[in-house]
Amino acid sequence: MQGVAIKTGVVGATGAVGQELIRLISERLKDVAEIRPMASARSAGKQIDTKLGPVTIIEATPDSFEGLDYVFFSAGASVSKALAPAAAAAGAVVVDNSSAFRMEERIPLVIPEINLDAVGEGDKIIANPNCCAIVLLMGLAPLRKFGRIKRAIVSTYQSASGAGAAAMEELQEQTQAYLNGEEIEPKIMPHPYAFNLFSHNTAINEHGWNVEEWKVLEESRKILSQDDLDMHITCIRVPILRSHSESVWVEFDGLAPTEDEARAIWDAMPGVFVVDDREGNHFPMPSEASGHNDVLVGRTRRDLTNPNAMSFFLCGDQLLKGAALNAVQIAEHLENRK
Amino acid sequence: MQGVAIKTGVVGATGAVGQELIRLISERLKDVAEIRPMASARSAGKQIDTKLGPVTIIEATPDSFEGLDYVFFSAGASVSKALAPAAAAAGAVVVDNSSAFRMEERIPLVIPEINLDAVGEGDKIIANPNCCAIVLLMGLAPLRKFGRIKRAIVSTYQSASGAGAAAMEELQEQTQAYLNGEEIEPKIMPHPYAFNLFSHNTAINEHGWNVEEWKVLEESRKILSQDDLDMHITCIRVPILRSHSESVWVEFDGLAPTEDEARAIWDAMPGVFVVDDREGNHFPMPSEASGHNDVLVGRTRRDLTNPNAMSFFLCGDQLLKGAALNAVQIAEHLENRK
Repeated sequence: MQGVAIKTGVVGATGAVGQELIRLISERLKDVAEIRPMASARSAGKQIDTKLGPVTIIEATPDSFEGLDYVFFSAGASVSKALAPAAAAAGAVVVDNSSAFRMEERIPLVIPEINLDAVGEGDKIIANPNCCAIVLLMGLAPLRKFGRIKRAIVSTYQSASGAGAAAMEELQEQTQAYLNGEEIEPKIMPHPYAFNLFSHNTAINEHGWNVEEWKVLEESRKILSQDDLDMHITCIRVPILRSHSESVWVEFDGLAPTEDEARAIWDAMPGVFVVDDREGNHFPMPSEASGHNDVLVGRTRRDLTNPNAMSFFLCGDQLLKGAALNAVQIAEHLENRK
Repeated sequence: MQGVAIKTGVVGATGAVGQELIRLISERLKDVAEIRPMASARSAGKQIDTKLGPVTIIEATPDSFEGLDYVFFSAGASVSKALAPAAAAAGAVVVDNSSAFRMEERIPLVIPEINLDAVGEGDKIIANPNCCAIVLLMGLAPLRKFGRIKRAIVSTYQSASGAGAAAMEELQEQTQAYLNGEEIEPKIMPHPYAFNLFSHNTAINEHGWNVEEWKVLEESRKILSQDDLDMHITCIRVPILRSHSESVWVEFDGLAPTEDEARAIWDAMPGVFVVDDREGNHFPMPSEASGHNDVLVGRTRRDLTNPNAMSFFLCGDQLLKGAALNAVQIAEHLENRK
């Protein structure tokens, strides 16, 4: 519909994702009349700049959502659980970046390029997937054109941004301390982070999987509507600031695509950009993915001995397509549907 | 034999591996009467400290090896090709850390804990394997107790040290420049390295594999004496200073070991140390592997759906077990054999 101004809110406005949300809302949504930044009481009263001018952060409470068309939540699962139902009841469509509702059967879990059709008329809460799942599926989902995916084996190279702005700051501060020859004292992360890597800092379940790995498995199955998808994933935190990389080996029921076929299907996929220059030794890198909307895909190789398998390497900005961009794209597509 | 002093030489004495070689020779070999440091003409004349006192670096030429029992080469494949035959002809046993001779059929390629028996009487050149292959096989080889390994799928997290002391320096200098907000200009590495990662900086072959990946595949097959070993490996350089990590999924012909069985076999393996504390979220990390002789193994998990498969995570000091330590251990074992 033309000319009807939309009003938006962001819960978690001071976070790394929240800041990207505020920027992307005014850049991508048409006729935005309001961006209402919300946060905890601690941040209320602070001013932040938006393209609509400076706005004062208000405390997010069940009464904060009146008049809003879309509310983006990015303040952790407990805040979403406490406040998203109130935002939906006030008439807004909620796009929730936390894990609070992702695996609830009636809540659509959406990557717009892949399964926008999961959103039904009248859905008031839409879940934004885990950042690693989004980056992975942007490369994996289009390959289903070549046949059913039987098994994927994935190792991640995850950045500090997935743990928030404080973790990004800690990585930089610790690295400076290391270079100065000073003692390092981890605060946000459980282990030293300067020039170090470690298994993802979430609890391990009875299968030996950490919470992050389990999310990627379950969410991938839900988004692809494939309950029997076999996936083995190892989530590792590396000393990178804001892009997640993933090394992916995938086996199909039948023949894997050739390298050219895979590149062609990614070329045709919105939101994916192929970086696969063997001669120049130029493949997806965080330094080139960061700040960009597209997920970079490359290093495409057929398996030497298994004709049904291939591998590739992905890199996507965790704060953008892995979080804020995907959330704003959901609202964008719902607006276009009207 | 007791009491016979041995004379050693190190070609590439000024490099990152060379410095570790000089330290380890005096620490681990008994009755060392000489450590003769050799390098290019550029470094000849410089003094370096050894436990035997300060020694002057001489230029490595075909005439530099007289009287030596062991010569360790770590100055690149072309230097080894040019000079190792002369050292062997002069009567020394050569332990070569380069890729020059590794795949030559008559040259043993040795990880002492795994295949010391590959060294025959009278072998004068012994090849030290690629660093990633050593770290990987320290975890993989003992698992053969549970059955033939059918397939391994590996993603690496490789440190700067694999590209030498200059690359380690570049990583630190670039990182400082990044933190200062200065321009970064890659010199040693082909891509920005501060807070970045990239596909291993070696040429890509017709299968899409880079030289590093191909080395690990071929060398693993040779060391394990298993020509039909299926391995798919992706080698990635991460901004870490000196330990290589590897994420490994492995499939056996029959049932994979349980997690406890795998831990028990690693516990019994010399040179391997198990770090697998799920409750404390404590697994192998470069910060704990660096400077240590043992390869750390952990994050052990059975595959959820394939009873023949499991995964684990490894971390080993690239300069020690990945290079200098393994080389000195070869000499150590040959001395013990006498």
